[in-house]
Amino acid sequence: MTLHEIASILECAGIGSQIEISGMNTLRDACEGEISFLSDSKYEKDLATTQASAVILPKAKSSLLPSGVVAIESDEPYLMVAKLSQYFAKPIRSSDAAPVVGEGSVVYPTAHLENGSKIGVNCTIMSGVYIGAEVVIGDNVILYPNVTIYRDCSIGNNVMIHAGTVIGSDGFGYAHTKMGEHVKLYQNGNVIIEDDVEIGANTTVDCAVFGSTIIKRGSKIDNLIQIGHNCIVGEHSIMVAQSGLAGSTTLGRNVVMGGQSATAGHLSIAPFTTLAARSGVTKSITLKGVYSGFPLMEHKLWLKMQAKLAKILES
Amino acid sequence: MTLHEIASILECAGIGSQIEISGMNTLRDACEGEISFLSDSKYEKDLATTQASAVILPKAKSSLLPSGVVAIESDEPYLMVAKLSQYFAKPIRSSDAAPVVGEGSVVYPTAHLENGSKIGVNCTIMSGVYIGAEVVIGDNVILYPNVTIYRDCSIGNNVMIHAGTVIGSDGFGYAHTKMGEHVKLYQNGNVIIEDDVEIGANTTVDCAVFGSTIIKRGSKIDNLIQIGHNCIVGEHSIMVAQSGLAGSTTLGRNVVMGGQSATAGHLSIAPFTTLAARSGVTKSITLKGVYSGFPLMEHKLWLKMQAKLAKILES
Amino acid sequence: MTLHEIASILECAGIGSQIEISGMNTLRDACEGEISFLSDSKYEKDLATTQASAVILPKAKSSLLPSGVVAIESDEPYLMVAKLSQYFAKPIRSSDAAPVVGEGSVVYPTAHLENGSKIGVNCTIMSGVYIGAEVVIGDNVILYPNVTIYRDCSIGNNVMIHAGTVIGSDGFGYAHTKMGEHVKLYQNGNVIIEDDVEIGANTTVDCAVFGSTIIKRGSKIDNLIQIGHNCIVGEHSIMVAQSGLAGSTTLGRNVVMGGQSATAGHLSIAPFTTLAARSGVTKSITLKGVYSGFPLMEHKLWLKMQAKLAKILES
Repeated sequence: MTLHEIASILECAGIGSQIEISGMNTLRDACEGEISFLSDSKYEKDLATTQASAVILPKAKSSLLPSGVVAIESDEPYLMVAKLSQYFAKPIRSSDAAPVVGEGSVVYPTAHLENGSKIGVNCTIMSGVYIGAEVVIGDNVILYPNVTIYRDCSIGNNVMIHAGTVIGSDGFGYAHTKMGEHVKLYQNGNVIIEDDVEIGANTTVDCAVFGSTIIKRGSKIDNLIQIGHNCIVGEHSIMVAQSGLAGSTTLGRNVVMGGQSATAGHLSIAPFTTLAARSGVTKSITLKGVYSGFPLMEHKLWLKMQAKLAKILES
Repeated sequence: MTLHEIASILECAGIGSQIEISGMNTLRDACEGEISFLSDSKYEKDLATTQASAVILPKAKSSLLPSGVVAIESDEPYLMVAKLSQYFAKPIRSSDAAPVVGEGSVVYPTAHLENGSKIGVNCTIMSGVYIGAEVVIGDNVILYPNVTIYRDCSIGNNVMIHAGTVIGSDGFGYAHTKMGEHVKLYQNGNVIIEDDVEIGANTTVDCAVFGSTIIKRGSKIDNLIQIGHNCIVGEHSIMVAQSGLAGSTTLGRNVVMGGQSATAGHLSIAPFTTLAARSGVTKSITLKGVYSGFPLMEHKLWLKMQAKLAKILES
Repeated sequence: MTLHEIASILECAGIGSQIEISGMNTLRDACEGEISFLSDSKYEKDLATTQASAVILPKAKSSLLPSGVVAIESDEPYLMVAKLSQYFAKPIRSSDAAPVVGEGSVVYPTAHLENGSKIGVNCTIMSGVYIGAEVVIGDNVILYPNVTIYRDCSIGNNVMIHAGTVIGSDGFGYAHTKMGEHVKLYQNGNVIIEDDVEIGANTTVDCAVFGSTIIKRGSKIDNLIQIGHNCIVGEHSIMVAQSGLAGSTTLGRNVVMGGQSATAGHLSIAPFTTLAARSGVTKSITLKGVYSGFPLMEHKLWLKMQAKLAKILES
């Protein structure tokens, strides 16, 4: 699609450039031939060094772009990105290459492997499993029945994923019109699950909007857990049943999240932090420790708070 | 089934009527040939105008029925309704008509379409999807792998439902005997999903006991969400991951429910209301605003409360 | 595997015994030919009477074993058990006997029945269902689409399990190394679901580490619920959507758990207890009643607490 065509879709006049645009990306990760955007001022610093061929951004910021980068000016850049995203959405099927299955691997007859997928050796792909296009699966992996892996995801070695779990479903991202309608930001990225990870049943891990959601080596994820787009779960972390991570949150290594605990989005949790069951995290944690409650506090303060409240109750 | 046979099942003596009864319904929606019931005094006002042919109700209320409507008197009308409901439960399969699939639609080989289902044009019905009897699906719909749509549900145009989600499973409704046993009230209704709705992965939307659970146009529902029977989700509403609606609650348009938030049943939430993450709603909301906490309060009061509690903690 | 081989795997010198070990079990349930372990001092009382042929335990406890039982001494017995458990993990497939399906039962073509499974009469096993090896299913059972039943589980009569639910996935159990890595304790047990149980959609019930997770007669379990390994749900109990039980907790009969409520592990909840929506239980409940909040308290105290807090807010 040419920039001129993109400008037409976005109803931005005066852009005649016939540069061919092959994809969308963040300011930091965009390459030549890609279009990017500025919708949050905290990424303004990335404007000067972006390799994107064009950037959708507010008029007032155009001057910050390197010369040669085309500015597509808009008061609503995020909405423009969302509208454009469907044109770059990857199709469900995109390859003619038959799936490759390594030696010693068992694929049940009702599993569905899309073209372009690759499965390592000694894997077990059970009934009803779906493996999307361009998915790469390592060795000694067990996917229990009815697991779904969306396209482009990558699964390491010695990974076990229990029944009904969904890896790589679309992150929950929308731009909003002035009329209160929601325009889907098609999710472009994938999920990477590293070696020695185990994921329980009916858990959901969303793909990244751009780039990757990552579950690092040795992490153990229980049942019915939500991991939002662009999260990073550190090595050897543990998430107990029904806990959740909102988008773009990063757990350091060996973080423990108790049952039904959750974090807001865009947070960073220090390595070796323990979050008690039901705790709710709304700010980043820089100091490892044991935390409880909602709002979150150090666990020992939470216990003190409960004692104070008990006293109030008696009064 | 005749009224006489019904009376025998319910062990109510003295009803010889051979009127043929074809179904059960609420007092308000029942037609001639249907049986209804009064189990909650708030519906007493509907007795006088019901079109039902028979009504199960406490003896003291019989006189409120229009003449010609047969009263089946019981001290436990709800238990009677539950016992009767299995006789009117719809079978899983009920049609000889082969499924109809519109032009340009792709149905994966391991998807299962029951007879009597209809799929519009340009749909993608992926592997492991189940589409029940009499289900109607619009155009440009994507059902990702292992989605289940129970019988009689209706899906609009441009709807996307992610992997593992279940639409139309039985609502959670039981009558209780004096011995503490639970008798299933077979769920008779369906789910209607309007145009432009997106639903995430491993979410569950229960069918209505009578009538419809409705997800209105443009709503966006995230992963691992529970929507109970007979709920109505207003246009352009947003529900974030792991939130839940108990039965018969209605959200107005553009309601936003944060992650892990929930409402009790039989509530009404004003349009344009925002419920913060983790908030718990036990009363209807008539004034739009931002609300937090459990018990729920205006968000600014919740912040004030946290400040007061912090002071108590320091004291 | 001989004890000598086991000792080699665990790097314990000096055990030459060629006794053949056929499995692992708890001290109380182990038979001759099985190996057991002591990792929690509360089970020390079972040492004297264990029938196990060998026990992994701290050196200081060896003298408590009956004569003839081989002691495998370790400072980290739980880690040793986990390392050993994979050698005794049951394979996914273990039988040559074709599945047996009773008269009048319907099995959809995309359902997968492993060898060694047995299905009673008048069952409906819908599309995408997986039934593992040695699973036994009673009569009049409906398994809705994409239900997964792991190996060795047992389902009673008149059971209904809604779409996407997973029965018998691995409990969440790991031993931890000094380096912060998690070693899987392969789960050896099963799930037993008794007669007249209904389970909603996308719920997960984990198998026991040893022995059985049990859902007793007449219980009704809603959608998106987590039931951990070795839990026992008492007769006629009710669990509402998104609630959860951590491992080894026992509910008495007719317990009601509201939506999003949860318990910690290893608790016992008195029969006829009601836990309000969102309540969080961290201690056993010996007296039936209505409880709310987190920390949990009698519901009437919780109401009083909210009144006190409202007053503080106004002050």
